[in-house]
Amino acid sequence: MHKLLILSKHRSEDYLRLLTAAHLPGLEIHTLSQPSEAAQNHTTCDLIFGEPPLIREVLPYMTGLRWVQATWAGVDQLVDPALRRDYTLTNARGVFGGLMSEFVFGYILLHERRILERYQAQQVGRWDNTTATTLHGKRLGLLGVGSIGAALAHTGVFFGMRVRGYTRSSESCPDIETFYHGGSLGEFADNLDYLVCTLPAAPGARQIVNRSLLERLPPRAFFINVGRGNAVDEQALDAALRSGRLAGAVLDVFEQEPLPPEHFFWHTPNLWITGHTAAPSYPEDLAGVFIDNYRRFLSGEALRYQVDFERGY
Amino acid sequence: MHKLLILSKHRSEDYLRLLTAAHLPGLEIHTLSQPSEAAQNHTTCDLIFGEPPLIREVLPYMTGLRWVQATWAGVDQLVDPALRRDYTLTNARGVFGGLMSEFVFGYILLHERRILERYQAQQVGRWDNTTATTLHGKRLGLLGVGSIGAALAHTGVFFGMRVRGYTRSSESCPDIETFYHGGSLGEFADNLDYLVCTLPAAPGARQIVNRSLLERLPPRAFFINVGRGNAVDEQALDAALRSGRLAGAVLDVFEQEPLPPEHFFWHTPNLWITGHTAAPSYPEDLAGVFIDNYRRFLSGEALRYQVDFERGY
Repeated sequence: MHKLLILSKHRSEDYLRLLTAAHLPGLEIHTLSQPSEAAQNHTTCDLIFGEPPLIREVLPYMTGLRWVQATWAGVDQLVDPALRRDYTLTNARGVFGGLMSEFVFGYILLHERRILERYQAQQVGRWDNTTATTLHGKRLGLLGVGSIGAALAHTGVFFGMRVRGYTRSSESCPDIETFYHGGSLGEFADNLDYLVCTLPAAPGARQIVNRSLLERLPPRAFFINVGRGNAVDEQALDAALRSGRLAGAVLDVFEQEPLPPEHFFWHTPNLWITGHTAAPSYPEDLAGVFIDNYRRFLSGEALRYQVDFERGY
Repeated sequence: MHKLLILSKHRSEDYLRLLTAAHLPGLEIHTLSQPSEAAQNHTTCDLIFGEPPLIREVLPYMTGLRWVQATWAGVDQLVDPALRRDYTLTNARGVFGGLMSEFVFGYILLHERRILERYQAQQVGRWDNTTATTLHGKRLGLLGVGSIGAALAHTGVFFGMRVRGYTRSSESCPDIETFYHGGSLGEFADNLDYLVCTLPAAPGARQIVNRSLLERLPPRAFFINVGRGNAVDEQALDAALRSGRLAGAVLDVFEQEPLPPEHFFWHTPNLWITGHTAAPSYPEDLAGVFIDNYRRFLSGEALRYQVDFERGY
């Protein structure tokens, strides 16, 4: 018999209902919505399904831990070198691609088709018949091509864009026309119309979007970050937008979240701020990831979406 | 030798350059940017390639007219029963699908992902982390499933939507889950999340989006018109938006264009007005349509995109 601890601030009951309905064999399920003293009653659970910040708190007390399935894609709070690594960590992947495509292409189309500008013309009663431009033939650059990047590449190709990717080494995505690695970040940025960052909080990704990369982009370029906040040098992005060296940007993630009230980004021109809502975690999708992996776990198969603690994702 | 008259207000030189570059056999090309007296010098042209309102003016004088290729999809100005019909009329099709998809899904994603609301929260320094909803599983209804409707259906399916279509009789589009015809317009409207009208100015389409159809839609529905302005009862749409019986609407086409300064639509809530810019006519695309059809014309093949004068499209 395996013992699972569900650890979720707001979704414990949803997950319990969904996993119970799946009638998973040999599984006893416990739930907790915050890692209080009650966690002491669950230290013998060998499996955890839940949110990284809560898991981080109970990690030291779990005496027989074998596998943790995170409900988030971002597990930087669990790969901290100060923490134990004597268990298998899997994260949530494969469920965010469609949601991320909606978000990213919502904003790409907003920019390309001048939706806000046309709305502003309407507010002053002006008939704006400026000829529209098209995504067809435009260049989309993806910083990071994991499962989310691959979904964005596919959507880019659907709209007739030419897609390039910057990755550590992978070249497996068929929708990417050209891959770039290592020192070729500048060439990757040359002449891009849209740059989208999907990078996790991996060591090599810290402030990869810095002044030098931003200066390499053409002034017409539009930047979107749906990866991790620390991939961006926030001061450099603010400066690029203020000086008009970049046409616009959308940030869903930040160094500090929620974005503090005194942060300069609230006053940066041509910047769209969203509150880490690009790809919500729907309980049905995440329960599906756990259920699939639990069946693999039982049969001794390799789990999907296993995190490499060294690499950080 | 065939004699072609290019008739375009702003694009005559572009079309001339593109058609000249195609080295079409047996073709003498004339151009005119307005149907002034100079048109008298071109009355012996047997072919016309150009914009419907200009073509309408020269139509009576063309003594040997055989084929007209319109550069627009909308040819209502040429199918008027008062005008001659002794020539083959083809319109522009197959080139607007991608552009229309960008426009329609730009606004669908704007609505679904609450882009304007999040922007307004940002303006007052509020971190808006409202959970996003998704297009996946939402219902898209298409009024008219020609080449533009088919492209929208395909994009809807790409985003995981369930797509239904209302047509006169055609059921050929593979991306449509259910087809509706004739008196089943109400059933078609039931429970839709998005309604998009792509209908041409055909007799049966006049004010098809009227009070009764709008009342059949659920209050969460969002309406987009990229067909013809007269498909909509403008008073009824204004009333539905004012009373909140409809979540929002986007109109790219109107009974009168440009929309007159005194029109009530400038003050209708939750209405997005765009100035007939959803699918611009790019000269390269349209020259391609002419070139393909001219080769068919020479070889005696049936022309593509032939208009049925009775049906109106």
